[in-house]
Amino acid sequence: MALPTLSGPRRKLILAGVSLVVTFIVGLLIGRFAISSQGNGANLSGVPRAIIQEADDTVHEKLASRIKAENIRENLRQLTSKPHLAGTPADYRQAKELADLWIQQGFDDVTITPYEVLMSYPDLARPNVVRVRGQNDEILYESPLTEAILTPRENVPGVVPPFNAYSANGTVTGDLVYVNYGRDEDFKYVTEDVNINVTGKIAIARYGKIFRGDKAKAAQKYGAIGLIIYTDPADYAMGANSSDVYPHSWWLPPTGAQRGTLFVTDGDPETPGYPSIDTAYRAPESQINLPAIPVHPISYGEAENIMKYMSGPVVTPDWSGGMNIVYRYGPGFNNQTLKHVEMRISTQNQRNVTYNTIGIITGAVEPDRYVILGNHRDAWVFGAMDPSSGTAAMMEAARVMAEMVRSGEWRPRRSLVFCSWGAEEYGDLGSFEWVEEYMKNLGARTVAYLNVDIAVSGTRSLSVGATPLLNRAVYEAAKRVVSPRGDGSLYDEWLKAVPQTVSGQSPQPRIDPPGSGSDHDPFLLKAGIPVANIGYKSESQYPLYHSVYETFYAMEKFYDPDFKIHASVTSFWVELARSLSDSLVLPYNVSDYAVLLEQSRHDLDNEYGPILKLNVANYSALDSYIKDFKRVAAEFMNSLGAVNRNNPLAVRAVNDQMMQLERTFIDPAGLPGRAYHKHVVLAPNMYNAYAASSFPGLVDLLGQLDASRDHDSQWKPIKKRISPFSFSSSIQLLRH
Amino acid sequence: MALPTLSGPRRKLILAGVSLVVTFIVGLLIGRFAISSQGNGANLSGVPRAIIQEADDTVHEKLASRIKAENIRENLRQLTSKPHLAGTPADYRQAKELADLWIQQGFDDVTITPYEVLMSYPDLARPNVVRVRGQNDEILYESPLTEAILTPRENVPGVVPPFNAYSANGTVTGDLVYVNYGRDEDFKYVTEDVNINVTGKIAIARYGKIFRGDKAKAAQKYGAIGLIIYTDPADYAMGANSSDVYPHSWWLPPTGAQRGTLFVTDGDPETPGYPSIDTAYRAPESQINLPAIPVHPISYGEAENIMKYMSGPVVTPDWSGGMNIVYRYGPGFNNQTLKHVEMRISTQNQRNVTYNTIGIITGAVEPDRYVILGNHRDAWVFGAMDPSSGTAAMMEAARVMAEMVRSGEWRPRRSLVFCSWGAEEYGDLGSFEWVEEYMKNLGARTVAYLNVDIAVSGTRSLSVGATPLLNRAVYEAAKRVVSPRGDGSLYDEWLKAVPQTVSGQSPQPRIDPPGSGSDHDPFLLKAGIPVANIGYKSESQYPLYHSVYETFYAMEKFYDPDFKIHASVTSFWVELARSLSDSLVLPYNVSDYAVLLEQSRHDLDNEYGPILKLNVANYSALDSYIKDFKRVAAEFMNSLGAVNRNNPLAVRAVNDQMMQLERTFIDPAGLPGRAYHKHVVLAPNMYNAYAASSFPGLVDLLGQLDASRDHDSQWKPIKKRISPFSFSSSIQLLRH
Repeated sequence: MALPTLSGPRRKLILAGVSLVVTFIVGLLIGRFAISSQGNGANLSGVPRAIIQEADDTVHEKLASRIKAENIRENLRQLTSKPHLAGTPADYRQAKELADLWIQQGFDDVTITPYEVLMSYPDLARPNVVRVRGQNDEILYESPLTEAILTPRENVPGVVPPFNAYSANGTVTGDLVYVNYGRDEDFKYVTEDVNINVTGKIAIARYGKIFRGDKAKAAQKYGAIGLIIYTDPADYAMGANSSDVYPHSWWLPPTGAQRGTLFVTDGDPETPGYPSIDTAYRAPESQINLPAIPVHPISYGEAENIMKYMSGPVVTPDWSGGMNIVYRYGPGFNNQTLKHVEMRISTQNQRNVTYNTIGIITGAVEPDRYVILGNHRDAWVFGAMDPSSGTAAMMEAARVMAEMVRSGEWRPRRSLVFCSWGAEEYGDLGSFEWVEEYMKNLGARTVAYLNVDIAVSGTRSLSVGATPLLNRAVYEAAKRVVSPRGDGSLYDEWLKAVPQTVSGQSPQPRIDPPGSGSDHDPFLLKAGIPVANIGYKSESQYPLYHSVYETFYAMEKFYDPDFKIHASVTSFWVELARSLSDSLVLPYNVSDYAVLLEQSRHDLDNEYGPILKLNVANYSALDSYIKDFKRVAAEFMNSLGAVNRNNPLAVRAVNDQMMQLERTFIDPAGLPGRAYHKHVVLAPNMYNAYAASSFPGLVDLLGQLDASRDHDSQWKPIKKRISPFSFSSSIQLLRH
Repeated sequence: MALPTLSGPRRKLILAGVSLVVTFIVGLLIGRFAISSQGNGANLSGVPRAIIQEADDTVHEKLASRIKAENIRENLRQLTSKPHLAGTPADYRQAKELADLWIQQGFDDVTITPYEVLMSYPDLARPNVVRVRGQNDEILYESPLTEAILTPRENVPGVVPPFNAYSANGTVTGDLVYVNYGRDEDFKYVTEDVNINVTGKIAIARYGKIFRGDKAKAAQKYGAIGLIIYTDPADYAMGANSSDVYPHSWWLPPTGAQRGTLFVTDGDPETPGYPSIDTAYRAPESQINLPAIPVHPISYGEAENIMKYMSGPVVTPDWSGGMNIVYRYGPGFNNQTLKHVEMRISTQNQRNVTYNTIGIITGAVEPDRYVILGNHRDAWVFGAMDPSSGTAAMMEAARVMAEMVRSGEWRPRRSLVFCSWGAEEYGDLGSFEWVEEYMKNLGARTVAYLNVDIAVSGTRSLSVGATPLLNRAVYEAAKRVVSPRGDGSLYDEWLKAVPQTVSGQSPQPRIDPPGSGSDHDPFLLKAGIPVANIGYKSESQYPLYHSVYETFYAMEKFYDPDFKIHASVTSFWVELARSLSDSLVLPYNVSDYAVLLEQSRHDLDNEYGPILKLNVANYSALDSYIKDFKRVAAEFMNSLGAVNRNNPLAVRAVNDQMMQLERTFIDPAGLPGRAYHKHVVLAPNMYNAYAASSFPGLVDLLGQLDASRDHDSQWKPIKKRISPFSFSSSIQLLRH
């Protein structure tokens, strides 16, 4: 069959049409495949462009503008309306409320993780007391069982009386000896120089300078049968008279006592190194390193009533505190009617459940990389500063970030994990057990842990303890946040308050190593995760610390009436988390670690240099390690610019290198006598641990030197060597 | 100025042309931008398409076709021409030759890593001897100082006489007691049942059943003052008469003795846990766990000369070996002219340098992921089987892979790392120190370590010890390689030789857990890296093991005349490495770990079930762990299909999850008394360690049960618990 032929013009028109279509398709195909795939790079069909996108910095403004001081105030008011001690019903209640809130706010995943851990509580049926007995054993004085109610805020049920967690229980009687701050050197002085044998006596120490658990250890070491710890006005009320203290100011009143744990390591005492999950083996109590003597905290009002009768020589001026008495060493009383002191302590260790609430916003591009924000929820009583100012801030931070995600305006590149910890006050129990349980995932995937324990406890400036890797990101975030005073940025204000100059550079706000004592510990010290510990502070500890007077009233009246400081801290925390979770290339600076190593080397030289040069054949090799590290770190930072940002695997590789740098400083064996502390650079005596890590024999030498000087009871000579592997590891990591 | 007008047809033509161009460009633009970038996925400008490409399986054929048996033969001939004991000049010479070869073959990076480590050598000026002294202290018999030369191959200088590395030195004399295999149970039997006190005596044991270092430990524990270890013909010559042994067959001749280390842990004895780099601290010798008594290996020719005079009761049948004598327990001799045995051992520990040669072929897409191929280079003497058959294979594997890369035909997605280790024979010294030095990089990045120590020491079939993660890849590779006999695949032959059936599945070749004793140990046991240990074997140990007769002659004459077995093993090794380095999604199967856990649970139940059910309240919880793991593993494997293979970060995330699964079984604390052994599932007594990891108290219970039965001297009760965290970690890792 023949096809009908078309006439000329019509035929041409169709021909033209077909030509156009064919040409279009050819162009389309060339454009689609030839240019996009072969000619110009890989085309990831079905994969969002976000995979190679730089962070959108305008998100910062959007998040910041949503943060409301008024919300934080309201959060704090509610959080502090009742006591919320770890392991009590309030522990679960608040965990559940937070979980419900986050679910409602659209978090991608919310879980409550319970851990049954060993805690410690006074027996309310047999209250803890400190008494003075007379010659016929009559009670001449007895410490009050509770702190006085000074404002309506404190007048609620469930306030736990002052006690020291994990104290031994029992009744001891004996002569009192005053031991200043209860440091090893204080006990040594009173024993050797004042010639008072502490053995069999009850020691009384003032709070301050060192961790209270170390006071108990020293007391035990010198043979004391009990330890009373009081808050001296010289440290907590700065000589204020009674009308100047709480509720009239932020100074501690004579009726306030400082609660606190005596546990010197961290994590559930019964499961060191392992998570307290159901099937976990729990060590018998005899194998746990807890105090063997009763320890009890009292107020300076009580202390004055007892210490004013002490006999013995008058103390040296630096041992004298702020009470209106003549301070004497003891032992015993100068008044014949007073026989001795009695401590009756009923505090019991008890296995209880504490709860963490974990909320996750899943990352859009790298869901398997985590930026973690954490704060503990448990307080000794109301915890208006510690930790509820942080909790109030975290609730607001979580709200604004979740809101942006829910509205579809933003989703972070990496996952954001919000952690509300239980039982921090007992020794970071909630966070330690969680890190121990999820160690492998966290260690492989976590970009940073950002801790806010106490968001606000002062009025001076921001205060950040961080690993050097995070310095740059911390500064950048602080520059983007307005100061609570409204004049300049948080950075400007901070720089003015605590400037620090590294040679050859312009001054920057001081960032110290993170120290220990809050929930960043397991992340940094066990897992080698970069951490920052954030708060807004005054120069010294806030006086109401761990007393019943840490109230909403105190916060609003004396620290942050309009909650602008809270809002600033929240904005800073949010921005730091955003930049770490959103940046295509992580905003670490590995060269800042070189600065820390050089500083520490300098400190080491100042303190031990001449002796080390005499005793260590290759002392100068330490310098070559540091020089190598510095050079390799600088080369690495330079090479970052050349990374093809269109290549997600190339970007991931350099990000992993930087993230893992912190892990190279982890020694799985841990520091001697502190197995949980595995970070060999950010050690409590950093430069010693780190010098020790380079030299055979250096550790023992430093230990000997230190023992002979005994100038600082916190310094624990590291008897076992730490290997240099962390140095070669870190250099290798950045090289390859 | 007016433009000239065109006539109709010409105008139409131009119009049509312009239309076509415009249409083409529009099509092009739409194709280029609308479809490729916005509409259909991210376009990675400048990034090769390989980033999302599946592996090209034809590469296997190309690699396999290049592997030449003749090359491997020539490699082995050269490698075995002279002795190459660790720490001798041959150590560096061979390391350097290999490095030069790899540089010449175009490797991207080649380095030699020296480590100064503690080794052990006999003092050739004062040879080690075993003597029989007469009543007047005259020498009635003296063991020959060297093994007899039986072929020209052995007649070269530099053969180290038989010795046991790390033996104590000195001279001891005493009565001889025969202790069978020298296991704890053997010593116990001879002490308690035969009633011979071994204290103060010299024990003589036969090689076999357990590691020689454990024989030395047992001898020491039972008070022996020296230990002689000989190779009984029942174990090494299977009753062959003298004309049937080497050089006429592969059976051990009466003049052959087995050298070997006595070091029971691994890595440089002086730097446990840390790399032996220049500044490393070295433990004083008093703190190192090395034998305190002299230990020396002799041939059965020598043993017969001594043992035929032994007195005491005739041994039970299972203690009797293959020598033509009546086996008696001792103590001492039945002939009055023979007084006692004397061991004069001069072996000295000595710090020497050993060398690893490391060659890298950098991955095209994921250079920061490593597939490592390793073999040790050092031999006690010529090492034709151990390890030079493996070295010869590795040289050929490296050559063909490097050649494909140099010719531009192929480059693996991930990096290939070839490792030639020094001083394996002393206790994996070279590999341990290297893993310790580069631990952090290796732990974060290594996909698999594939060890070939002895490539060929038998004629039956392939033999693979591997972590379950690698089973699938191992089987797939074996299916693609032709068997040396040419009938079917390596897999078919292997299946026929050692079939194993897991319930409900068709039979597969048996893959055992990797065991310990070669260079995969540090990778698996310290770093938690998936490993396979590969060789081609007969059913039992090859008789010439560690004697001077491990020659090229023996290999060519009795095992692999045409080197087809070597070529098959090489092809298998290459294909396994290729599939692991090239596959887009890693060819692991996490569900195979569930199978192992179930099997182990079954073994545990068989062995201890009834007692455990009585004694452990929550014994059944073990099942829920395993069921959880199994379910989660299956879910994970199912979800792999849904991963968007166009998304390099999504693929990387699941690959990382699988890779890190092995790491979740690592406990940084290590097994009790074996700090370097940190893998809690692939433990020497796997099911015990793994059961122990779940239950409080179970460890102690198993220890008690075991002590009461004492049925296996290798079983070391794990006194300290191992935490369950590995189970929850592994489940969590696969879930998230």
